[in-house]
Amino acid sequence: MIECVLESGIFKTILKGAICLVSEMRFRFDSEGLHARAVDPANVAMVIIEVPSSEFEAYRIDKDEVVIGVDVNRLYDTSRAFRSGELVDIFTEDSKLTVRCGNIKYSVDLIDPAAIRKESKIPSLELPAKIVLDAGEFKKALEFAWKVADVVELQSSEDGFLVEAEGDIDSIQYEVGDAEAIELNKSEAKSLFGLEYLREFCKVAGNGEVLTIKLGTNYPARFAFDVCDGRAKVEYVLAPRIETE
Amino acid sequence: MIECVLESGIFKTILKGAICLVSEMRFRFDSEGLHARAVDPANVAMVIIEVPSSEFEAYRIDKDEVVIGVDVNRLYDTSRAFRSGELVDIFTEDSKLTVRCGNIKYSVDLIDPAAIRKESKIPSLELPAKIVLDAGEFKKALEFAWKVADVVELQSSEDGFLVEAEGDIDSIQYEVGDAEAIELNKSEAKSLFGLEYLREFCKVAGNGEVLTIKLGTNYPARFAFDVCDGRAKVEYVLAPRIETE
Amino acid sequence: MIECVLESGIFKTILKGAICLVSEMRFRFDSEGLHARAVDPANVAMVIIEVPSSEFEAYRIDKDEVVIGVDVNRLYDTSRAFRSGELVDIFTEDSKLTVRCGNIKYSVDLIDPAAIRKESKIPSLELPAKIVLDAGEFKKALEFAWKVADVVELQSSEDGFLVEAEGDIDSIQYEVGDAEAIELNKSEAKSLFGLEYLREFCKVAGNGEVLTIKLGTNYPARFAFDVCDGRAKVEYVLAPRIETE
Repeated sequence: MIECVLESGIFKTILKGAICLVSEMRFRFDSEGLHARAVDPANVAMVIIEVPSSEFEAYRIDKDEVVIGVDVNRLYDTSRAFRSGELVDIFTEDSKLTVRCGNIKYSVDLIDPAAIRKESKIPSLELPAKIVLDAGEFKKALEFAWKVADVVELQSSEDGFLVEAEGDIDSIQYEVGDAEAIELNKSEAKSLFGLEYLREFCKVAGNGEVLTIKLGTNYPARFAFDVCDGRAKVEYVLAPRIETE
Repeated sequence: MIECVLESGIFKTILKGAICLVSEMRFRFDSEGLHARAVDPANVAMVIIEVPSSEFEAYRIDKDEVVIGVDVNRLYDTSRAFRSGELVDIFTEDSKLTVRCGNIKYSVDLIDPAAIRKESKIPSLELPAKIVLDAGEFKKALEFAWKVADVVELQSSEDGFLVEAEGDIDSIQYEVGDAEAIELNKSEAKSLFGLEYLREFCKVAGNGEVLTIKLGTNYPARFAFDVCDGRAKVEYVLAPRIETE
Repeated sequence: MIECVLESGIFKTILKGAICLVSEMRFRFDSEGLHARAVDPANVAMVIIEVPSSEFEAYRIDKDEVVIGVDVNRLYDTSRAFRSGELVDIFTEDSKLTVRCGNIKYSVDLIDPAAIRKESKIPSLELPAKIVLDAGEFKKALEFAWKVADVVELQSSEDGFLVEAEGDIDSIQYEVGDAEAIELNKSEAKSLFGLEYLREFCKVAGNGEVLTIKLGTNYPARFAFDVCDGRAKVEYVLAPRIETE
């Protein structure tokens, strides 16, 4: 049994972070808070969601750990219309998940957690390069890249951070230097990624929200969004595309 | 012969109220004003439009009653671009209806009223429950309901007014209590309605405009919109859906 | 070789002016500035683009005349996202055209100018009527006309300027008199034009920008847009439609 209260902005954001990869997800509630993790059907990307129990307005579970299976698509579709700033009551009852926000009460059948693909472990990755920037800036770079290709190269070097895409007859480079970035450690690293994944990831964050990228060379990278003023975390791990030339 | 002048906002609103049910309509002008009434092709809903002659800036008819057949779709499509607050000259001449607003003069062939389906009588209905609320609030409730089903139950009781929809695996309830409503008589009543009709009806009104619902049990209901600061009336009568369980 | 700098607003506007007629275009740079001209595949309309060299922030060419072939569609598609007011570096190198604006560098293969249809001469036209008006006003008139037909009659007379369209059962007239126009010489002239062309032309200009129309009778007309505060010129010549009655 779960009985908790969360600000609607956080509630909507974590669901939005989930739906770009999966439609059903296992939510794990323990004394530390809500944890969720899932890999997309193509095994290319993982999403990791964390909301500490201290960020809930109320947080009560009847066991040390409660795991529920949630249809995140339906839940997001309804909750996106919740007014921001309002509180959402979230509780389970009779194998249903119910959320209540303002005048609205929405109930949906829970999914047997065993029927949902098990979370993989979070891979431990050695990623030399670190880039911290406004998520809106990264989004803009991706939109330019998208005009010429569906794969993008992310590159860190002493010159800064470079987003690069090559089409058949045109190419684009978007440079993020010290002036634009929040932090650049300028370690050498370079990998290719599918743009469709990256563009989906960025939907979770608005302009002004902080994104931390950790990058290696021909290696998976991490994209951690500090959403809702840092009150929740939505992070993605994305496998690289292999260059075929 | 008709020669009258009406504020463009009222003109656009009554046409918008008509087009959700029919594309051609009989407009009846008499000493009291403009009256129009039509039933949709499926015989499920009726629209009733009234603009008192006193709300026209000028109003002249050459007989006690003038009935014209109007292609409301075309007329709405053109007039929706009229600037709000301007005056519209409306006149008939040579079996054409002409409207003039600002720099624009639009003429369209009149339709023989005899070729348009005759108005049915307004049914006399005993409807115990009365709910008066902001049309925007009702619209929001319908949008939530639409996420889970295409039929909605409207229910009045001593607890207030409830908009409820049931999907296969989820359900939604939107409660309108004393705090949200303008008036609730709290009589017992409960009927199911097609959401597509209700959502169409609501297009005629903006947030802040007043909607009066009169409701029975498994019975047609009335939805009266007080549009344009009460200067015109657009009302719908909708047959209930029969519950099949 | 070209090396020049142009404000992004002008750069985007001339590309927008081009793409409504062609996807590839010859740009001619000489001591006076940038000149471009093209006829659409149907031979109905010509676009003429001029940016004086004095409107560039920097302007350097290595020959008296440099002609390049440009994929205007791709270039516009990328540059439309450039922030207005920024400067765009434009240069050719290794048979590529490169534009740099803010953090973005975009390169695209040049097209062999010989592979692009040669510009026709600008026809010399005796056009008695002159109409100068807000491009936004003309746009509005066209949108109304579009509701009833795909051909429009433009008419100048001592009564002013009239935009008129006839459908099968309806018709529309949009009158521009002395109060609405900037200048009307009121000479007699009247021609029919395809609305799709005119609507495309108008996309290049915003509300408040000045459009000068020169009109004859059953004769091509000129539509000159004074874009970017008059710093660049985008002009169209459009062949008339022949009335078939």
